Amino acid sequence: MKYSMAEEIKVFRSWSSRFALRIIWALKLKGLEFDTVYEDLTNKSPLLLQYNQIHKKVPVLVHNGKVICESLVILEYIDETWKQNPLLPEDPHQQANARFWAKFGDDKVLQSIWGGVFLKEGKEQEEGVAASMENLKYLEEEIRGKKFFGGETIGLADIALGWLAHYLDIFEEIVGVKLIDHEKFPSLAAWKQEFANAPIIRENWPDRDKLVTKYVAMREANLGKGTPK
Amino acid sequence: MKYSMAEEIKVFRSWSSRFALRIIWALKLKGLEFDTVYEDLTNKSPLLLQYNQIHKKVPVLVHNGKVICESLVILEYIDETWKQNPLLPEDPHQQANARFWAKFGDDKVLQSIWGGVFLKEGKEQEEGVAASMENLKYLEEEIRGKKFFGGETIGLADIALGWLAHYLDIFEEIVGVKLIDHEKFPSLAAWKQEFANAPIIRENWPDRDKLVTKYVAMREANLGKGTPK
Repeated sequence: MKYSMAEEIKVFRSWSSRFALRIIWALKLKGLEFDTVYEDLTNKSPLLLQYNQIHKKVPVLVHNGKVICESLVILEYIDETWKQNPLLPEDPHQQANARFWAKFGDDKVLQSIWGGVFLKEGKEQEEGVAASMENLKYLEEEIRGKKFFGGETIGLADIALGWLAHYLDIFEEIVGVKLIDHEKFPSLAAWKQEFANAPIIRENWPDRDKLVTKYVAMREANLGKGTPK
Repeated sequence: MKYSMAEEIKVFRSWSSRFALRIIWALKLKGLEFDTVYEDLTNKSPLLLQYNQIHKKVPVLVHNGKVICESLVILEYIDETWKQNPLLPEDPHQQANARFWAKFGDDKVLQSIWGGVFLKEGKEQEEGVAASMENLKYLEEEIRGKKFFGGETIGLADIALGWLAHYLDIFEEIVGVKLIDHEKFPSLAAWKQEFANAPIIRENWPDRDKLVTKYVAMREANLGKGTPK
């Protein structure tokens, strides 16, 4: 692990944010040391609000005084800045595929599961389940025959979709709906396990019980109210 | 303009899509020749549905048999594949800025104007106007003192936000609400004009009257129904 004293790498995160976790994974996969600032999202620090004036969210990366926001943008920055253990492949078409699935994960998979299933009930939730299954089907087809979305090693799309490997179980448990089961999505279920247990990934999951408590409360507070992230 | 007979570049677009237009601009800024397939979005071709099975949308780029979907992903592919007239700067932090503003344009500016103002009425529209003005204020601050978001030349963020320079006037005219005026947003208004009149950009705008007719009908069909793109 190389570390230059002259280099400042700082991550603003919360203990639970699945978006911030992407940055922790990426920096650790790169073998970088960094400082972590834990934010209380109910009482955000002046520094976070200054650095991420627009979205007022974690994660924020600060590298030698330069501020970068938005987790997918930060991942690209990390991969461009530190070339070891690449998150994106060399080939432009494979790069495009990785970006496509990362975007699909946020725009469709996350939205249909979080907004359509987790924060809904009854008939609306049934529609959300149908939409989620449709989206997961595409992931199943993509991951079939591969270890990771990135091939033999964890890449950008794996990191972006990584929340599925820990948080999804918790969401499923809370609402009592199983979305990724081994019968319907055998390859995706295998990927979940492979990813969740990979070194660095496994070591950085937030505590499961604490997450359950947090998301039970969040669901109760937000049911039917829209789609907070 | 260089053109290799061996190279196949094909763009699936519609005459009006502001997302497809991004790809036309990018390819022309790169000085590339390409074939265009005009899709009727009310009767999509089997080839489009095969190439973009997931989103079923234009644009789709086909390069030597390789298929790429999602306009921002396609722009990255184009810039990575053909290095002349770069859309992204060399510096990783400037790259991150360009990606941030492109994403902000789609996630916030487009959503607040299209979903919040254009497809709304009354009280809901007033809220959409307030949200849109807030988002435009950030763009105004970012573009102040610069010719383009990309600096001296048109870059990724300019292309992503480029619809503001032509389609926004049409949306404003149809709903009778002015969002970008010279008093409130002098720098953004200047950028709109600079961008709209740049060679290649100017030559490729769809016909204004046809767009007005199309969007009047689209608004009537969708008012209050949600947010189709």
